[in-house]
Order: sequence, then C-alpha cells, then structure tokens
Amino acid sequence: MRIGIVGATGYGGAELLRLLNNHPEAKNIQLYTSTKEGVHIEESYPHVATIYDTSLKPFNPEVVGEDSDLVFMATPPGVSAQHTQEIASHGTQVIDLSGDLRITDPTIYETWYKRPAAQIETINQAVYGLSEWNREAIQSARIISNPGCYPTAALLGLAPLIHNDAIQQHSIIIDAKTGTSGAGRSATMMTHFSEMNENFKIYQVNTHKHTPEIEQQLHQWNNESGAITFQPHLVPMIRGIMATMYVQLKKPLTSEQLFSLYHQAYDGKPFVRIRKENNYPATKEVYGSNYCDIGLSYDERTGRVTVVSVIDNMVKGAAGQAIQNMNLMNGWDESMGLNLVPVYP
Amino acid sequence: MRIGIVGATGYGGAELLRLLNNHPEAKNIQLYTSTKEGVHIEESYPHVATIYDTSLKPFNPEVVGEDSDLVFMATPPGVSAQHTQEIASHGTQVIDLSGDLRITDPTIYETWYKRPAAQIETINQAVYGLSEWNREAIQSARIISNPGCYPTAALLGLAPLIHNDAIQQHSIIIDAKTGTSGAGRSATMMTHFSEMNENFKIYQVNTHKHTPEIEQQLHQWNNESGAITFQPHLVPMIRGIMATMYVQLKKPLTSEQLFSLYHQAYDGKPFVRIRKENNYPATKEVYGSNYCDIGLSYDERTGRVTVVSVIDNMVKGAAGQAIQNMNLMNGWDESMGLNLVPVYP
Amino acid sequence: MRIGIVGATGYGGAELLRLLNNHPEAKNIQLYTSTKEGVHIEESYPHVATIYDTSLKPFNPEVVGEDSDLVFMATPPGVSAQHTQEIASHGTQVIDLSGDLRITDPTIYETWYKRPAAQIETINQAVYGLSEWNREAIQSARIISNPGCYPTAALLGLAPLIHNDAIQQHSIIIDAKTGTSGAGRSATMMTHFSEMNENFKIYQVNTHKHTPEIEQQLHQWNNESGAITFQPHLVPMIRGIMATMYVQLKKPLTSEQLFSLYHQAYDGKPFVRIRKENNYPATKEVYGSNYCDIGLSYDERTGRVTVVSVIDNMVKGAAGQAIQNMNLMNGWDESMGLNLVPVYP
Amino acid sequence: MRIGIVGATGYGGAELLRLLNNHPEAKNIQLYTSTKEGVHIEESYPHVATIYDTSLKPFNPEVVGEDSDLVFMATPPGVSAQHTQEIASHGTQVIDLSGDLRITDPTIYETWYKRPAAQIETINQAVYGLSEWNREAIQSARIISNPGCYPTAALLGLAPLIHNDAIQQHSIIIDAKTGTSGAGRSATMMTHFSEMNENFKIYQVNTHKHTPEIEQQLHQWNNESGAITFQPHLVPMIRGIMATMYVQLKKPLTSEQLFSLYHQAYDGKPFVRIRKENNYPATKEVYGSNYCDIGLSYDERTGRVTVVSVIDNMVKGAAGQAIQNMNLMNGWDESMGLNLVPVYP
Repeated sequence: MRIGIVGATGYGGAELLRLLNNHPEAKNIQLYTSTKEGVHIEESYPHVATIYDTSLKPFNPEVVGEDSDLVFMATPPGVSAQHTQEIASHGTQVIDLSGDLRITDPTIYETWYKRPAAQIETINQAVYGLSEWNREAIQSARIISNPGCYPTAALLGLAPLIHNDAIQQHSIIIDAKTGTSGAGRSATMMTHFSEMNENFKIYQVNTHKHTPEIEQQLHQWNNESGAITFQPHLVPMIRGIMATMYVQLKKPLTSEQLFSLYHQAYDGKPFVRIRKENNYPATKEVYGSNYCDIGLSYDERTGRVTVVSVIDNMVKGAAGQAIQNMNLMNGWDESMGLNLVPVYP
Repeated sequence: MRIGIVGATGYGGAELLRLLNNHPEAKNIQLYTSTKEGVHIEESYPHVATIYDTSLKPFNPEVVGEDSDLVFMATPPGVSAQHTQEIASHGTQVIDLSGDLRITDPTIYETWYKRPAAQIETINQAVYGLSEWNREAIQSARIISNPGCYPTAALLGLAPLIHNDAIQQHSIIIDAKTGTSGAGRSATMMTHFSEMNENFKIYQVNTHKHTPEIEQQLHQWNNESGAITFQPHLVPMIRGIMATMYVQLKKPLTSEQLFSLYHQAYDGKPFVRIRKENNYPATKEVYGSNYCDIGLSYDERTGRVTVVSVIDNMVKGAAGQAIQNMNLMNGWDESMGLNLVPVYP
Repeated sequence: MRIGIVGATGYGGAELLRLLNNHPEAKNIQLYTSTKEGVHIEESYPHVATIYDTSLKPFNPEVVGEDSDLVFMATPPGVSAQHTQEIASHGTQVIDLSGDLRITDPTIYETWYKRPAAQIETINQAVYGLSEWNREAIQSARIISNPGCYPTAALLGLAPLIHNDAIQQHSIIIDAKTGTSGAGRSATMMTHFSEMNENFKIYQVNTHKHTPEIEQQLHQWNNESGAITFQPHLVPMIRGIMATMYVQLKKPLTSEQLFSLYHQAYDGKPFVRIRKENNYPATKEVYGSNYCDIGLSYDERTGRVTVVSVIDNMVKGAAGQAIQNMNLMNGWDESMGLNLVPVYP
Repeated sequence: MRIGIVGATGYGGAELLRLLNNHPEAKNIQLYTSTKEGVHIEESYPHVATIYDTSLKPFNPEVVGEDSDLVFMATPPGVSAQHTQEIASHGTQVIDLSGDLRITDPTIYETWYKRPAAQIETINQAVYGLSEWNREAIQSARIISNPGCYPTAALLGLAPLIHNDAIQQHSIIIDAKTGTSGAGRSATMMTHFSEMNENFKIYQVNTHKHTPEIEQQLHQWNNESGAITFQPHLVPMIRGIMATMYVQLKKPLTSEQLFSLYHQAYDGKPFVRIRKENNYPATKEVYGSNYCDIGLSYDERTGRVTVVSVIDNMVKGAAGQAIQNMNLMNGWDESMGLNLVPVYP
C-alpha cells in the first residue's frame, strides 16, 4: 500500500513514522511538506536516521492523491478543509488528523474555532473515527475525521454511561490534563521549558475547541445530552492525557453494575482496558501505546461517579487511532502494527 | 523568641528553616528529632550548611516546652495528638502542622484517618489556623491546628461564594493537583522518580483525609453545605497545588458580581491575589512564596463557576501559613518574614 | 523457544517484557521471582495487563534450567554468580544482565564491588556481550555477561580510536550522565522525585563499579591502555545515557580521518549511527530504541577529541543488547525484534 | 538609592526583581525596556503582581543615566556595548549582565562572539566582577562586567589550584551542565518542553563564548595557562549549573593539602562553601541562593583532581553576583539582601 503523510515534520507526522515502521502493510511511505521541501527527514528528526532514508516532497494535492492509496493529513488547521476532496477524488483514502472535519455544524465550528468551516460536502463525507464506537461507518468510509485527543479520552470513558442513559442531564464535568506534545512542535512561551517545568497550568477555560466535539458525539449517542463543562490543563510532561470525569447518576448503581456496563461495552475491544475496583490508571501505564485505560468509582456519599480515562495523546489520541482506522478501512486486523507494550518506566 | 521545631528533618521542617532565616523575631531556633539525635542538620540538609550550625536534639516534650516560647510540630501522625498538651502546659505556643488536631469530631477523624483521634480536650483547644478567615481566634490561641495543603487552596477559593450562600447544595467538586513534596521525604514507590516523571496519577479516590477537613470548614461557614467530591492528583513536579473547583450557582451572577465578591472578601489580605477576568494562575507563579492566587470564570452555557486556586504547598500550604499564624498570635505584622517574591522561572 | 526471565519485577525484567513481545521467536515466556511468588505480573506492572496474562513463579534454578531454552538473569548482585552454572548445566543459554560475571580478575572485582567474586570457572565461561565487538565469541557462547550500561556507551564510543592506537596513554576521561532508571525500581532517597527533579547530581566519584569494566575491555583491545577517569552523574530524566569522552591524540587527525575511522568500524553494524560533522546526538534521539548514536569533534586548539555517545540505558544498555546477543547466539538476524523507532518526542 | 533595570522582562531582570525586593537599600526601582513600553510588569510576570506595581518605561540611555544611581543592564548582546558609556557619564554606576564587556581583547571577542566588539575605552573601564577574587577593583569601579554563569562556576572551582600553580599546562577540561533558564525567555526549539524533557543535550561543542572568558581569567591569574576544553550540556531542569572539572596536577597532593588550599582561598568568603571529603554538591543544594558549593577529589590511580562546582545560574551566575557587586561598589555588607536559604526541595 502506498501511503502519504502530509505534514511529516510535525509531531503527528513523526509518530506516524514511528508506528508505521512497525506495520506490515506500510512499506511504501512518502512524506510531504509545505515548508521544508527537499529537506531530508533526518534533518528534522535525527531519531529516524538510517530508518527512513527519504526527503520531504512538496505538498501538491493532485500528486499526493495520484501517488497514494491512503493519505494521513497531519496538517495545521485549514489544509484538510481545502484539499481533502481533491485528494480523495483520486480514489485515495484520507485520514485527517487535524480538526477541520470534526464538527458537523459549520456554525458551531466557526463559533469555537474562530475560522471558516470546510465545505459542507466534505464535512458530510467525513466519518468520525472513534474506532471503538463507529466501526461500521469507518469500515466503509473514504474520508475519516480522526478524533481529537481529549475527545478520545473523554468519550471512551463516558460512552457506557451515556449509552445506558445513566447520567443526569447537565451534570457532566471533564477535568482534563495533558502533556505538552499535543501543542505541537512550534516553540511557544506556553510550552517553553523554563516556563513549563515545575509548573501546572489551566488554559482555554470554557473555550477549548474540543468542547463541541465531545458534546456533538454525546448528543448523537443520547439526545438528552447538552452542554458540558470541559477544562483542560497542561502537565509538565510530554505525553499522556488523563480525563477525570464527574457525573451525577440518574439512579444509584452498585459497583458491580457500574463495572458490568463497562465490561460489556468494551468486550472484544483490545485497546480499552478496564481497571479493577479501587485501581486507577496513571498516564505512564499507556505511554507510547494505543491503549485507553479506564478506572471507575461510585461515591455513595455524593451519588457521583468519577471516571478516570488515560491515553497517550500521540498514539490513541492521534497517530495510533489513525492507524487503527486505516486497518478498519482496509479490512485488516484492527490492531495490526499497534501491538506495542507501553514504555515503562 | 525561642523557637522549637519538632521533626526538623522532614520537608516541613526544612521549609520552616528556610523561611525563619528571613524572620526578624526568630533568632533562637532549636531543632528536635525522634530519629536522628545528635546529627548535625547539614548532614540531613547540606543546603543549610554554614547557615544553621546546629545539631538535632532528642525530642522530649517537657524539655521542648520549657525551652521554647513557640513550637512548630512538623511531625508524623500521632505525635502532636500525644504531646501537644504537655508542651503547651509550659505556657508555650504550639503550631501543629500535622493533621492530628484538625477534625473536631473524633468519629469522623477515625473514619477517614484510620487511627485513634487525639483527646477531645486537646482538639477543643486547637484553633484552625486558616489565617485569612480565622484571624481573631488565631490571635488569642495557644494551640493552632495548621490547615492541610489542599484545604488551604480549596477553602480560600470557595470561601467568598459559600459565605454569600451562592452555591447550590451538593454541587461542589474539587479536582486537585499537587506536586510530590506534600508526600514528604520518605522514599516510596509512588514518588520514585522513575515512576513519577512523565507520569500523572490520581490517588486516594474518594478517600483522601483532607475531604472531611474541607467539609467541616465549609459547613461551619454555611450549614447547608454537605458532602463534597474531592479527588487529588499527583503532578510530576515538586511544589505547587492547583485546585480546580466546579460549583453550580443558586442564581446567575454577572462576572462583575462574581469578581466583586472575591475582591471584597480579600481586600486587605496581602497573601490572596485575585486575577483579572480571563486570566488564570499557574502554580509556578506562587512558587516559594506565601501567595494564594485565584482565577474565576462563570460559564453561561452551564451556569457553572470554575474557581482556580493555586498555592505553594510547602509555604501557604504548610510552613508559610504556620509562620503567618505565629505572627498573628504574637501581634506582629501578619507578613513578617514572608515577603518573598515567588521564584520564577 | 522457551524463555525464562529471572527477576521479572525489576526494570530490566519489564524492559525485556516490552521488547520480547515484539520478537517473533519469543512466544513462550516464563517469569520468575524470589520475592513475589504467585503474584500476577499486572499487579507489579499494570502497563502489561492483557498483554502478559501470567503469574510469577518461584525461582528454582533447577526448574528454570530444565524448563527454558534461554534464561535472562535480570537479578540483583550475587544471584547469577551463585546459580548460572546450574541453569546452564541443563544446556540452557544464559544471558546475565547483572554485573556478576563481567570482571575476569576476581581481585579487581572484589576491590570495586566490595563483595565476593563468582567462581572462576563461571567467570571464564562467560563471554562479554558487547555485540558489535565480540560477535564471534557471542555466537558460540553458552553464557553471556551482558555489558553494563555505562560501559556500552563508553566502549562503543572509544573503540575505533583505541583499536587504531590513536589515544595518548592515561588521557581518557569519561564524563557520563544517566537517567534514573538505571538505579532500579527500589525507592531510595537518591532517586526520590522531590530530591531528583530540578536537580543534577554527581555520585560515586572515582569509585563506580563500571570503571574496571571499561578499563578491562580497553586494555584487552590495546594493552597500552591503563587507568581511566570515569565520573557518573544523575540527570532528572528516566531513560538515557550520554558519555562525553575526552582523549588526547597521539598525533593529529583531520576531521575526515577521524570520521573515517568510525565509519569503517561501524560499517554494517545497524545499531551504531555516526553523526555528521558538527552534529551531536541527544539522549532522546535513541529513546526506547537499541541505537547508539555517536558524535565527534577534534579541537585543534587543544589537540583533544571529544566523543559523544548516547544510548537508552534500558535498551542498548540492558535488555536490548541482551536480545541482540540472544539473536547472535541463535543464528538469527541480529536486529530481530529490535527494529524500533525511538520514541520522539 | 535609585536603581534602574534595563531589560526587565528577561529572566535576568525578573531575578533582579526577586532579589532586590529583599534588599534594604533598593527601594526605588525603575524598569526599562526596548520592546514593551508602557506595559505593566505584571502582564509579563504575574508572579510579581501586588509586589511591583509599576509599568515598563522606554529605554533612553540619557534618561536612565540621569534618573538612576545604579543601573543593571540585563540586555541582549550589543546594548551595553553601545550605551554603557553614556549612562555612566551621568556618574551612574553600571553593572552589565550581558557579555558585551567581558573579553578585553577585541579580536578574541569577535572570533568567538561573531559580532563587533565594544569600543576599547568602554572595555577598559569595565571591571570583571568575579566578586570573590576581584574585590578591590570592584570596590572602586564605576562599570562592572558581570561574569558569565559558566565562568563563575568554573573559575571559583579552579582558582585555588591555578593560584597555587598546581595544574599541569594544557590539562584543564571543563564538562559543564546547565538548566534551561540560562538560554533566556525567548521560546526556541532547543528549549521547547517537548524537545527538552526526558532529554540531555550537548551543544556548542568547542565553540561556546564562555571559553575565552574562562581562559582570559585563568591566564591573568597564571600566565602559564592556555587553551582549555570546555563543553556545555543542557539538563532538563530550569536552574542550576554543575561544572565537573578535570585537571592533572604538577605533583601529587594529599587530600589534606588539597582541601587546605580551598579552605585558605575561601576563608571569610560567605558564598563559597567547601564540602567535606567524599561529599559532593548537587545543584539543588544552592537553588535560588547565591552560594557556590565545591566538592573535591584526588584520584591516586590517575593523578587527576576532579573539582565539582555548583551554582544557581540565575543567582550567583547572574543577578545575585550582580547585587553582590553592587554591595561591594557601595561599601555595604557584601551579602546584603542575599542571605537566602536555598529552596529545597
């Protein structure tokens, strides 16, 4: 299979390079860029020296579409919105890791993203690639909108409760924490080492773009679901997301019932691991892997369930789930190339 | 003033040494220990070499009481419960940094702490040392129970709303994050560098001992207030606490009204700084100092207020607030010895 | 192939689990312990849950020898010295990751290790497993003494110069820096997060056990080589070693000659990557992989060469090189199971 | 005393703000900038909110000279070279924290700095402010060239040996490690958190600008001293420098003699602390303070002395030593405002 990666010099691109090297069907990989044409990939990423002996090609959507069977768009905002149709017109599968195609309602997109939405035809063709919950649509899709990192952690954690209509309306609070790699490779004051180490920050309070993405999917699953509170925080680490989620139940559940909902929901889904009672995941326990680990607690004193969901934002939150979707789209084993043990310690 | 520090080899003791060196009234300091008698303090803490040229004395409560005008108990659980009365019987002021005397109801103490409570007479004499809110009682106290680190951050953040009866019952959720120094100097797997770096953990879900401490104070302020949800997390950093708090309002407030409540509450209180609208504190911005910085946001979509409160757990959450209380007890300027600019970066 | 891992709950054991999961010949793996018999591996290491569904067996050398074709000893000092012979007597291959069998002269061992040496017969049978330089002996060995992490980085960096007799006698200085994982999983004050973060330490000045291991190999390569200066430092990171090495040349070399020596030495050796001129490796560029990256600089002002050699101490410095040796011993492709792209960022 | 800080929004400026707040003679402080005129300092540095209630003034050298008794230049390269004379012409004391005036030979400056040197008159008036070793000249100086961070650590560590002519010519090797704050506040790829955490880097191999600064001072102390090897490394931490230095002795010294040299050299110098034998400093042990801690080891096997010198690069390596020099210039107690206990942990 001929694979193209557009935006190969960002962290999403680098992680695709790492994971695809382990994938038996991905032997012919081309790298595209809009900013570093002709540069050898090892100049951007010395860690792939001798592994990928290739230079970056200029991004021309027509050429990319023609020369690829599948394209990963690991691009800044706006690129996918503009070029996905043309690439896909060559019969090429497109998996978009940017957020351009995630929000189905252009008005909501423009409110939260503060930029024009993609054309409605493109949006409508894009299938939301939350692999565990949208499997059938993914299998027959040509264009995948790969979920955001926070939404992946949050939605996998909330899905069993929301599907079972167990949550009180308006009670969902998501306190999310991420490492810095989600902010990308561009150097900013926010993620400058001297500003970030020995520091813990909250950011984009009540305004993060992943809020409507989570709300949209929850609402699709259960149309009672409305506005949520979602607050992201920045942790002095590179990889990992933890979403600590607080929901009020409609009626009490025993711990057994609670765990049973989750085991049923994720039975046969290899990348979601439910922790035993009184056991909660830490982000490092999924480091470098495609797992989402979930811990659960029901507090009788308050009638509240706390759901703890962790992923590696670069893997299950980006490149890993993209490859999982590639596998589903092509009828391959869902976990092909993704059987990586987390890097620990 | 003759000052004794019991438990000088722990982090609480070390931080007292750092801060008291800057305090004009603290010129005669004795260090006591139960484990390292006779050892020179610089063997435990090379960083104080040439500054404190003194050895650790054995802890004998009678001697300590007799030889000190004020004693800081920076001790493991149980020591203060047992010895505070005897020390205080010499007319000595006692400031207890352990949690032994914080919970007024022995049953609640024993439920959460899983150990016997102190004698009720000792508990009753101890004044809860939340400096900004309990000033008068502190000024006339002989025994201070210094607040926990999490409760300090949480209570300073919630106080204006709870005093104004603005919060819906049962709606308080505190998602708290701390650096590792709060866990003390004893090496444990939990805080082993290889386990903790590049990692983010939740711990003691629904069972942390600071939960009843926060509930007790909130209830005292407003007897409608009941059980809260409090989940602590461990951040790969040494110092700093952020409490992100979610409350549902009884009735909507404008942003102006919300900020006004806080400004009124903390007017003239030098260690609480309220951030401007759309501006939120990071933990490093109070690093090494006695400040508590608070940011606020009201979200119209959900009717929920998010309060962000940060402290340095070693200072405002322990040794700094203890010295602030010492100042209040002795009629000195509240901020004597505590005018430290945060260490940044 | 039936593989046994003795000491599976340490970090060396955990890294073997991670890497062997990727190895096509390693499908039957048994885990042995002296301290946690009967415990499921996921209780020690939640990150391998669902991947390794197995419990720890008691370590009995006879059983281990009988039930395994190859055994990795990832054990504390003394265990291999005592039990390797018995395990090997069953025809089992043994790869020892502890330092028990590295020093051929028992007197030197006892001077530096402060403990009794293994029996001389065992020592004599053990082949030093520096894969790139001892390939033939490894291929026919039954017992491998896997090199220490520092010696691996240092020796790979110095070998081309020492083989070409280019270094002035007594001029070798190795300033080495490591992450904390090399210190193992046991919690200690030295590697307590609060003591280690935002800190940089030197330790075991002039007394580190890896000193005679490096000297022994250098001397074997070039009998002019004598005592070296080796100073290890601890970096606030988990994985990675950098050895910065300073040597005085016997006679000047042009940069071209210098690089040419290294390219010749490592031609066809897939895990050693020589950087281009004016380009130096950082530890993260080999993170999680079996690579050793080497940078070089000759300074005309001083006649000194600086060699910069980086590895991941858990991989090329331990489990990865052990697997590389397993591959060589069994006639498999040297890089089988080790084609991992470094984890970046 | 009226104090001006030019370049107040950089880290050097921020550290001056922190330390001067503790200084009894520094009550009138003006902040100057070339880039953020009119901005309130708390917008750049929220951590000083309520402590410094002042806005940044435009940098006009004439006005600054007229309105200040002493000026700290915490400016990028070139500013001091251009404006120091004019400021000083008003009778104003100038302490320059940039490197503009450190190298007395313009040719050497231009070779290493790759930019034009300052006018020779300015250079000649500037006194090198290594407080412990240049006290008399500093006391009568009008312009101080404050030493670089690395040279401070290195020179304090080497001075006793070089003054006693104990070191073999051409044998000095300085392997130096620094936190990221020395690189300043501008966001760069090099110090981007995702690139820097869990990473250890070498940089500017054989080309760092501090090399000639160290050589110049060593040569001034002992004209046998020539070219040195100096290699800087970047540690994933914010503050702290360790210089590990290797020198060959002319003739053997007993440990007693070695330590005696250092104790004599630093007797009565409050900020240099010599460690006991077999005890070595870690960078955190001077964190946030003006101390330089030094450890020593003589290795009989190699005839080599290892000197370990640590400082906080922001304090003794920049703002702290600048204030120490201010104190000396004005006849105040050398340690006025600098009696800070290191922040530990």
